[in-house]
Amino acid sequence: MFFEGSEKKAEVFVDPKQLCLLTDISDDFWAALVNCCNARILSTMSNQKCKAFLLSESSLFVWADRFVILTCGETRLVNSVEYFIQKIGVDKLVHVTYQRKNEYFSHAQPSCFGDDIKLLSRYLAGKALRFGEMDSHHNYVFHQDNGFRANPEHKTYELLAYQISSQASEKLTTPGLTASQIREFLQLERLLPGFSLDDFVFKPYGYSVNAIRDHQYLTIHVTPQANSSYVSVESNLNLIERAPLILDILQPASFDLLSFNEFDFQQQTSRFIPDHYISKSLVKETLSNNYQVYFANYILPKKHFSRAIMLDIASDNHAL
Amino acid sequence: MFFEGSEKKAEVFVDPKQLCLLTDISDDFWAALVNCCNARILSTMSNQKCKAFLLSESSLFVWADRFVILTCGETRLVNSVEYFIQKIGVDKLVHVTYQRKNEYFSHAQPSCFGDDIKLLSRYLAGKALRFGEMDSHHNYVFHQDNGFRANPEHKTYELLAYQISSQASEKLTTPGLTASQIREFLQLERLLPGFSLDDFVFKPYGYSVNAIRDHQYLTIHVTPQANSSYVSVESNLNLIERAPLILDILQPASFDLLSFNEFDFQQQTSRFIPDHYISKSLVKETLSNNYQVYFANYILPKKHFSRAIMLDIASDNHAL
Repeated sequence: MFFEGSEKKAEVFVDPKQLCLLTDISDDFWAALVNCCNARILSTMSNQKCKAFLLSESSLFVWADRFVILTCGETRLVNSVEYFIQKIGVDKLVHVTYQRKNEYFSHAQPSCFGDDIKLLSRYLAGKALRFGEMDSHHNYVFHQDNGFRANPEHKTYELLAYQISSQASEKLTTPGLTASQIREFLQLERLLPGFSLDDFVFKPYGYSVNAIRDHQYLTIHVTPQANSSYVSVESNLNLIERAPLILDILQPASFDLLSFNEFDFQQQTSRFIPDHYISKSLVKETLSNNYQVYFANYILPKKHFSRAIMLDIASDNHAL
Repeated sequence: MFFEGSEKKAEVFVDPKQLCLLTDISDDFWAALVNCCNARILSTMSNQKCKAFLLSESSLFVWADRFVILTCGETRLVNSVEYFIQKIGVDKLVHVTYQRKNEYFSHAQPSCFGDDIKLLSRYLAGKALRFGEMDSHHNYVFHQDNGFRANPEHKTYELLAYQISSQASEKLTTPGLTASQIREFLQLERLLPGFSLDDFVFKPYGYSVNAIRDHQYLTIHVTPQANSSYVSVESNLNLIERAPLILDILQPASFDLLSFNEFDFQQQTSRFIPDHYISKSLVKETLSNNYQVYFANYILPKKHFSRAIMLDIASDNHAL
C-alpha cells in the first residue's frame, strides 16, 4: 500500500483591519475551502491567537492576518486557494505563497506544479523558483510579486524526513497503536512543552498532530510504511535546534530542511545537524518578497548492501 | 526546455536455432517494432555478430540470440515488446527482461512501470523488483520467471550520470557542435579503441552514439541541458573499470551503477570509484533467472550554497 505523503502548501496573508480571519470567517467557510481540494476537517482546536484544523489530508492553521494550509495525498490544494480568492476577492489579498514538494508518485497526481501556478497566474502575478535538484528532493515555491515585504520575524521551518529507520517504521505501523503511544514515541511532551495537541491515528496507519501555543504552531504528519515512509514537521518554532531530537527518534536515511527568514541557517545547521549526515543539496535565495529561504538536503551514506524490493505485480498499485 | 532522458529497456532472448534474429528478421520488422513506441530508426551499422540501430530515442542492438532496446523521452517501449511477442509468438521466446528507470517527469509519461508490467503479464509470468530507494534514483526490473538460467558470462553494465558539471553541460549545449567535437570531448577513441561508431547530434542539442566491435557494444545518450542533465552509458564492456575516465569527463553530481553478472562489483567499485563520491544506495540481489544484479547510487557532497532556479511560469513546461 502506498500513500503520497508529500505536501502542497499555501500561505495567504490578508489585512486583518479589513478582514480578520479569526473573527470574520466562519468554520463553514473553512470547511468549504478544505472541501475544494477533496479533503475534510476532522477536528478543530483554538486559542486567542490561532485556530488549528486537523484535516483528512494534513492541516490548516488560521491567524487573524493569515492562514497556512498543507495537504498531502492526491488533493489539488490550488483549488482551495482559488476558492479563497474568488470568495474574498483578489483586492483583499496581501500576499500569497504556494509551495509544492516533489512527489514520490507524481504520475498519480491530478496536476503538476506547472498546472497549479498557471491557474494561480490567472489571479496573481508572481514568480516561481525551484529549491533543490530535479533528480533529488526539491521544493517549488510560487510567490506573489506585488511589493509585499515579509516581516523578518515571520519565520517558518520545515523538516521533511524520508526513509525513517525500520524500527521507527515498524513501531509506527503496529496494528492498534494509540495516539498516546505515538505521542510518547515522538516525544511530543519534550518537543512541545505547554502546547495544546490535537491528533488523529489513521487506519491502517498514519498519524497527524497539530500543536498550538499562543501564536506558535507545529504540525507533524507521519506516513510510516516502509517503502515510502515520510514524516513532515512544520512549525514557526526553530526546527534546526530541534532537529537532533527528531532525527534521533526517526533516524531517516535522508531529510530536507527548509526555512523562511532563519538568517542563521548556516551556523545553526553546522551546530545542530549530526556529523554522520552529509549535505547533498544546499540552496539559499532571497525572494523579491523579502523572504530569505534556505533549503538543504542531507543523506546518510550507505555502508552495506541491502536486498532489492520485491513488487506485487497483481496489485493495482501505481506506486511503480 | 526539458527532455526526459531516462530510459526504458527491454532484453529479449530467443533460440537462434529456431529463429536467428540477425538473419531471419528483416530491417523492416525492426523499423515496425521501433515505430510501435513512437520512435524511428535514424541509422544502422553491423558486423558479423551484431547489428546496431541508432534511434530517434536511443538504441536497438540485435545479436543472433537476442535484442536489447533502450528508449527514452515519452516512448512507450512496452508496446514494442508486445509487438515482438505477437509477431514472433510467445513459444519462441526464451527470456524477457523489461527495465525502467525512474523518470525526472513521470507525470508526463504515457504509462508507469505498473501499467507496463500489467500489459507484459498478459503474455508472460514474471517477477518485478525495485533497485534503489523510492525517494531517490531507482530502477525497476521485470523478468520472466520461466526456468531460464542466465549465462554467468553474460554481463551488462550501466552507468547513469546526473547533473553533469556546468562546464560539461555548457560544452555539450554549444550551438553548432559537431559529432566529431563531441566524440573528442567524450574521449571515445580512448574509451572504445577499435570500435565502429555511429552517432547523431540532435537539435538544439543532445547526442547519441552506438559503438560495436565483434559482439561487444556500448551506447551513450546525452541529455546535456543544465536543469535535467543526464548521460547514460550502457555496455557489455566493464564500465566500473571505465568509470574514472567517464566521471572525469562529465563530473556528475550523482550517478548510478547497475550491473548484471559482475560478481566482483564490490571489489571493483572500491578500487575504481573516486573517493570523493559517497554511496547513497547499495543493493545486491540474485534474480530467479540467475542474474546477479548490483545497483549503487553515488553522490558528491555539497559544500557551498547555490541559488534557487528561477522558473518560467509562462512557458508550457511540464518540467515543474
